[in-house]
Amino acid sequence: MARLGVKSSSAQRNLRLLISYDGTDYHGWQTQPSLPTVQACIEQTVAQITGNRVKLFGSGRTDAGVHALGQVANFTTACPIPCGNLLKALNDLLPPAVRVRRVEEVRADFHARYAVRSKTYRYRILQAGICSPFLWRFVWHHPRALDRRRMSEAAAALVGEHDFTSFAAAGSAEDDVAPGGEPRSMVRTLSASRILWRERTKILAYEVRGSGFLHHMVRNLVGTLVEVGRGRMAPGDVARILEAQNRTLAGPTAPAQGLCLVRVEY
Amino acid sequence: MARLGVKSSSAQRNLRLLISYDGTDYHGWQTQPSLPTVQACIEQTVAQITGNRVKLFGSGRTDAGVHALGQVANFTTACPIPCGNLLKALNDLLPPAVRVRRVEEVRADFHARYAVRSKTYRYRILQAGICSPFLWRFVWHHPRALDRRRMSEAAAALVGEHDFTSFAAAGSAEDDVAPGGEPRSMVRTLSASRILWRERTKILAYEVRGSGFLHHMVRNLVGTLVEVGRGRMAPGDVARILEAQNRTLAGPTAPAQGLCLVRVEY
Repeated sequence: MARLGVKSSSAQRNLRLLISYDGTDYHGWQTQPSLPTVQACIEQTVAQITGNRVKLFGSGRTDAGVHALGQVANFTTACPIPCGNLLKALNDLLPPAVRVRRVEEVRADFHARYAVRSKTYRYRILQAGICSPFLWRFVWHHPRALDRRRMSEAAAALVGEHDFTSFAAAGSAEDDVAPGGEPRSMVRTLSASRILWRERTKILAYEVRGSGFLHHMVRNLVGTLVEVGRGRMAPGDVARILEAQNRTLAGPTAPAQGLCLVRVEY
Repeated sequence: MARLGVKSSSAQRNLRLLISYDGTDYHGWQTQPSLPTVQACIEQTVAQITGNRVKLFGSGRTDAGVHALGQVANFTTACPIPCGNLLKALNDLLPPAVRVRRVEEVRADFHARYAVRSKTYRYRILQAGICSPFLWRFVWHHPRALDRRRMSEAAAALVGEHDFTSFAAAGSAEDDVAPGGEPRSMVRTLSASRILWRERTKILAYEVRGSGFLHHMVRNLVGTLVEVGRGRMAPGDVARILEAQNRTLAGPTAPAQGLCLVRVEY
């Protein structure tokens, strides 16, 4: 039996997927009973191909309506289909709003959630007067003028290690929970936090890279930066809001459709 | 009565709309009983705002799934709402897949269909191995290699005045019918017909400008150019196909979602 076990275990492969999706028509990443989610959609497609149910581990959840350019997930399977063929089969069967960009076999101990070193999110705000029908799914249409200099100053103040309680969904579970159920720290480290602007497309983007993010954190940061851009908060208020550890002091939650998980680093 | 008539007629305004739409979820431009179309959608929204039914004249039909960056349409109304307010009201009520980019008052004799001088269409083919979930609505995903030099040569051979019977949907009505019911000529003049390529996005585009287009003409031209790009037809075949006036000699009809009406000139 032990030998059989070893044999069967050595036949198990750990496969890592790189995934893009248009989140508009999904209730987020994580499987939920009787609601379409990206995780469930991929799990079902893998089961269809391999003939066995699998459990997909994503790098973290994304909310309903949030997109991904580079979500990462892994699952174990005894299925011997070569990675290239699996990639093709997945994209043949998945809806066009969900694409697997890469399939690769990784070490047995790789876990897409616990091994995350950093994540990069981009939030896009369209400043044009009219929102293109080709863009509305992927931007927050906010035609009112925003002071990008002030927003950049506020964004820069977020870099570093901070307690982000003021920017987390009140009473919510977190995106990133350490394995083993350690006390849930609200401290995260941001290594980049900046405002980008493209005059040609009138798209203002907020790009943020961090060790991890609390639930709604990026959207709450954006909501606050927009308050700064509109002149209703000062760039210096960001430091005070962080310090206060009080969600009610930060700006509102920016709409989901502007947010995209760009990259996960391991 | 005549005076009243004159009075009422002088209060009539002729309004011209510049319109963009994502055609994915519409059964084309033209109103059809119990199917969602772009024309019906805008007519209903105008009626909602002005309180009166209107008849919208588009520059021409677009097929189900075809997009527009710059469709033009006009309608007459006695409604006194200023153009800027009407623009705002329309975009507040229209679905995000349909946007009015401009509303302007034009001369009473302007007719969006009969006054067309030229139209520009762009057809986009994605050559990447995997089709981005953010692009699939707007491109034909064709990962197989295409010889762009051969396609450019074939595209150039289409410029000028030709009988396009070989590239028109068999037995179909036309996009552009002259007013007054003249005999339906299949002769059209193309002033531009060229292949564009962007290495960064892997998008091959066919851009074509002409005095008018027959039903399915651009998609049939693209289907034929792709046959040339794949090596199944020679660039020189295009002249022979035009001459033969026989639809069965040209390539298949390229899928609708790659096509976009870019501009209408008057």
